[in-house]
Amino acid sequence: MTGKKIRVKGPATVSNLSCGFDVIGLALDEPFDIVDIELTDTGKVVIDDIRCSKTLSRDPEKNVVGAVLKAASALGGSRAGFRVSIDKGIRPGSGIGSSGASSAAAAFGANLLLGEIFTPAEMVRLAMEGERLASGSAHADNVAPALLGGITLVRSYDPLDIIELHVPPELFCVVIHPETEIKTSVARGLLDREVSLTTAVKQWGNLAGLVAGLFREDYDLIGRSLIDFVAEPKRSVLIKGFDQLKKTALECGALGAGISGSGPSVYALCRGRDSAVAVMKGMSGAMKSLGIRFDAYMSAVNRSGTQVC
Amino acid sequence: MTGKKIRVKGPATVSNLSCGFDVIGLALDEPFDIVDIELTDTGKVVIDDIRCSKTLSRDPEKNVVGAVLKAASALGGSRAGFRVSIDKGIRPGSGIGSSGASSAAAAFGANLLLGEIFTPAEMVRLAMEGERLASGSAHADNVAPALLGGITLVRSYDPLDIIELHVPPELFCVVIHPETEIKTSVARGLLDREVSLTTAVKQWGNLAGLVAGLFREDYDLIGRSLIDFVAEPKRSVLIKGFDQLKKTALECGALGAGISGSGPSVYALCRGRDSAVAVMKGMSGAMKSLGIRFDAYMSAVNRSGTQVC
Repeated sequence: MTGKKIRVKGPATVSNLSCGFDVIGLALDEPFDIVDIELTDTGKVVIDDIRCSKTLSRDPEKNVVGAVLKAASALGGSRAGFRVSIDKGIRPGSGIGSSGASSAAAAFGANLLLGEIFTPAEMVRLAMEGERLASGSAHADNVAPALLGGITLVRSYDPLDIIELHVPPELFCVVIHPETEIKTSVARGLLDREVSLTTAVKQWGNLAGLVAGLFREDYDLIGRSLIDFVAEPKRSVLIKGFDQLKKTALECGALGAGISGSGPSVYALCRGRDSAVAVMKGMSGAMKSLGIRFDAYMSAVNRSGTQVC
Repeated sequence: MTGKKIRVKGPATVSNLSCGFDVIGLALDEPFDIVDIELTDTGKVVIDDIRCSKTLSRDPEKNVVGAVLKAASALGGSRAGFRVSIDKGIRPGSGIGSSGASSAAAAFGANLLLGEIFTPAEMVRLAMEGERLASGSAHADNVAPALLGGITLVRSYDPLDIIELHVPPELFCVVIHPETEIKTSVARGLLDREVSLTTAVKQWGNLAGLVAGLFREDYDLIGRSLIDFVAEPKRSVLIKGFDQLKKTALECGALGAGISGSGPSVYALCRGRDSAVAVMKGMSGAMKSLGIRFDAYMSAVNRSGTQVC
């Protein structure tokens, strides 16, 4: 099948959702990365082109798509090679799973080109190799929802256990991405390595409330549960205007709001499209008042995950 | 309505369910406490009799039922008094919500006798006054399921927010209660005040998995999630034969097993009555081999909570 080409779309994701630090992720309809992959017999990965990003390396050893495709070839026991070009719809360092989206697209594409030899769980593991390269930690809270769609829980890494949660039909997400970059490693360095048991109990009470709210389609409960006692108090200082932005989101009717991933993007969950439009308008106004350049996205929860396009 | 009498049954409860430390509780059909309450116009609480317990005080200032009834009278703005007798089906210090069952029965009974003036949430708050007297902390993880039935989550104390979780129809619970007593305060003293963020993330990943498993009626997921990284490693040393008991439960087909509340009782969740019977038999055999006296209970999840009987 050498010479076969496919085009794959990997969606952006909002990880954590406030109370679900390191375990919860939600897939967005937009923005997304597009990765074109061609199967070759060279045994090598070649990245021809990266559009819309000047910072990412074309060296496959230093690019998440390269890392995933190399792992796929090795795991598949094949001598397959790949030629790739990447269209970065998601800016690196945005906090909405830029590396995860490319990694998911690469894992999904490799699986198709190699004859669908991997299970969904194996594709998640492959995509985690991209995250390992990007952040030093092979985490799944972005690549799992990017691949599978919906809202996912990483229950455990050992063994890897990804749980797909119920997505209430009226759930929408707004993302404001300020034009600054926060390295995941810097944001992670701000966190205390220990938390008080009291704080941990409050955090997992809210996470359990969020999961119950999703399954019950109880939007008020979802909103009440979107509280983060662990990361937001430490990380929000990195995001200029965070408090104002969150306050505005809630005043405009958002169920809840917080930092997306390790930031600087700020997410808000809303009930219904009209509410999401109002919240995006309000949050955009707040950013303009603060004089900060930004991108704004409004999206239903993406239910299909990574797909051929 | 002075002179009106009622008899109320408050069920035992298993709190924590391993990963849900301090927030999750499950109501059992048995054992239970029975509290007979008569409304008087004396403005005082009198405890006439306590059956099946030699350790509990009849002084209403030192008895959880007295604490709850006094609070009910005060909160109801009434000059009501109560005469009470208590039949302790649940041994104090057992780890299956002995104080919670009596407190729930008192709160439920007072509400009926005073003309149903309290909401369910207010009854939970009243019953928490019993827990405050018993353990020094007005916690809700036993009284909430005792009052409401089913499996409950204490999402938050400030404000109090109790969430009723879905109960899968085939869920059964086995409880082995060794004839020793562990004071909640002693068990609590064993816990570290701080936990590593890594451990906390593992714990809340499992709790989120448990909640998802309950709603999805996914018994395997429920079982995989019943892991406690926080309390069990510290507290299980207080329970002679704990490791053997848990191992036996799992070998006999339990979904999962762990410490009930702060112990010494050990619970196991099972899928179906037949499995629960086999698990109870196996765990009872292990206790006999260890030469430890015990009581054993097998119960469906109690769905009605505290009731008049």
